[in-house]
Amino acid sequence: MEKTILLGHGSGGKLSHDLIRDVFVKYFSNKILSEQTDSACLPGADEGIAFTTDSYVVDPIFFPGGNIGKLAVCGTVNDLAVSGAKPQYLSASFIIEEGFSLTDLEKIVCTMAEESRKAGVKIVTGDTKVVNKGKCDKLFINTSGVGYLPRKNHSISTGRKITPGDKIIVSGSVGDHGVAILSARENMSFSVNLKSDCASLNKMIQSVLSISSCIHFMRDATRGGLATVLCELSETRGLGIEADEENIPVKSSVQSACEIFGYDPLYMANEGKVVMVVDSLDVDKVLDKLHHNTLGKQASVIGEITEKHPGKVILKTAIGGTRLVDMLTGEQLPRIC
Amino acid sequence: MEKTILLGHGSGGKLSHDLIRDVFVKYFSNKILSEQTDSACLPGADEGIAFTTDSYVVDPIFFPGGNIGKLAVCGTVNDLAVSGAKPQYLSASFIIEEGFSLTDLEKIVCTMAEESRKAGVKIVTGDTKVVNKGKCDKLFINTSGVGYLPRKNHSISTGRKITPGDKIIVSGSVGDHGVAILSARENMSFSVNLKSDCASLNKMIQSVLSISSCIHFMRDATRGGLATVLCELSETRGLGIEADEENIPVKSSVQSACEIFGYDPLYMANEGKVVMVVDSLDVDKVLDKLHHNTLGKQASVIGEITEKHPGKVILKTAIGGTRLVDMLTGEQLPRIC
Repeated sequence: MEKTILLGHGSGGKLSHDLIRDVFVKYFSNKILSEQTDSACLPGADEGIAFTTDSYVVDPIFFPGGNIGKLAVCGTVNDLAVSGAKPQYLSASFIIEEGFSLTDLEKIVCTMAEESRKAGVKIVTGDTKVVNKGKCDKLFINTSGVGYLPRKNHSISTGRKITPGDKIIVSGSVGDHGVAILSARENMSFSVNLKSDCASLNKMIQSVLSISSCIHFMRDATRGGLATVLCELSETRGLGIEADEENIPVKSSVQSACEIFGYDPLYMANEGKVVMVVDSLDVDKVLDKLHHNTLGKQASVIGEITEKHPGKVILKTAIGGTRLVDMLTGEQLPRIC
Repeated sequence: MEKTILLGHGSGGKLSHDLIRDVFVKYFSNKILSEQTDSACLPGADEGIAFTTDSYVVDPIFFPGGNIGKLAVCGTVNDLAVSGAKPQYLSASFIIEEGFSLTDLEKIVCTMAEESRKAGVKIVTGDTKVVNKGKCDKLFINTSGVGYLPRKNHSISTGRKITPGDKIIVSGSVGDHGVAILSARENMSFSVNLKSDCASLNKMIQSVLSISSCIHFMRDATRGGLATVLCELSETRGLGIEADEENIPVKSSVQSACEIFGYDPLYMANEGKVVMVVDSLDVDKVLDKLHHNTLGKQASVIGEITEKHPGKVILKTAIGGTRLVDMLTGEQLPRIC
């Protein structure tokens, strides 16, 4: 039988990794791509250039805490920021379904402009395609981004400097975006106070980088959630991770929603949370800096890097046991971003 | 009644321009974007950086002379090249319909890799989204691109140095891509020998830039065709253009197909043709250089820049009359690229 694309190929989990390895990296093979970082680090004269791309197909396009346009700006800004780059310029490319409301388009574009200003980036180039009614679902947006990447930050996106003993910080509660989208889709009443955490993290991240030179790794925990970031990290670095469930901030509304639907908050998408691996000596001042930012008030140390069980993520559960955290094999929630 | 997006908003013609001006440029307003060049020129240290993006939604995804992947690489390489930049790095972002054939995806990715090698660029970052069956049409690809832009070429994409008396060159026959797609869509027998002209022009363009410093403007004549490039140029520079229909190369198969369907080859899309505005003193050596390249064998001088009728394009027709060439108001052929 012919192999076809499954929803799971877009999940950010196991199937996505297989597809990237077996198709994209295989054919496009080059050293920069094969690092598989959120942004590509391009060699430049004095500084390097970071370059990233993301297409957004989130459904619904308007949701509590944002819309597809805000997501498209924040997501790409964050991909640059977690690479240690200073986001500078974005592109914006729209695929629009014939018959889409111009008022809605204008609202979305307006949000993108506002979020770009907040993040201090400029949208400098773009493209518009329109497809016949029924040939796409309302609106898809691609944003690509370019940022300046100081030489000293080149190792952040690969995590090459990570060593056992380093602490893992998450900048706030996990799962908010995933549950916000879920609730918008299902029209759930539990959603009253729950918003997507969708936010540009670059200014908070820059403030941390300005006070510590021991940030060994950063990644925003988007599709696939915190669990996927930890799994990818332990696998690529060949080191173990021990995380402590009790220290992972999860809002009670997120927890309840996940219980109802049978989801695990650790795998739910975030759009305004960064995972940092920090030299243990710098942990306190990094936490302090994060706590001074509205977006990092709940930042917590959730675990550490170990030499034990290389390539594996072990979670100490709240009830005192331990469990192995693994990559998702299928798609938990399609079109989350 | 609520205003909605029409297919014509994606045509590259009048409605596209209105949408860009009234929505995108309005909100994203900044100096770099408002130049509305094919690639944004970013200020850099020694050289500048050119940055561009395009989403590809061509239907069918396989057509004589190429496929959506080849188009996505060539199109973005060409947008950088016509800005006077040396294309370096591409991103590739895929929106895939659930159930799409993995074999077809691999074929397309393979073509992208091959075309990237030919063009001398690297695909360094990417993204994959999968949407449920029926929520997009098979496969959409976004490629964004980054290139080095020598300071001396900064004025090429805006055409700031254009002066009356400059000659207009087109690098080969027009309308091939548009008619190839049309014929693939309609299963027409006239198409037997007709292929899309889809090709990366950067090496040919670099060879021309290396022998002349009097290339005052370049643009690839894609969606909207040669006519749209000329209309945009005369409008933005406030100068007149006189073109000579007899000198515009059109293949007889393209001419016949256009006659059958009632299309004008001047408005048909190309994916391997560049329009250049050149100081008249350099025209002969530029033509000579183009003729030495397989992609430029049929390069011809098709007209010149005048002080007369500023902002207007006048075509001397083959039968000896003249006609005003205007921007398309609707969509001639949706999903051509």
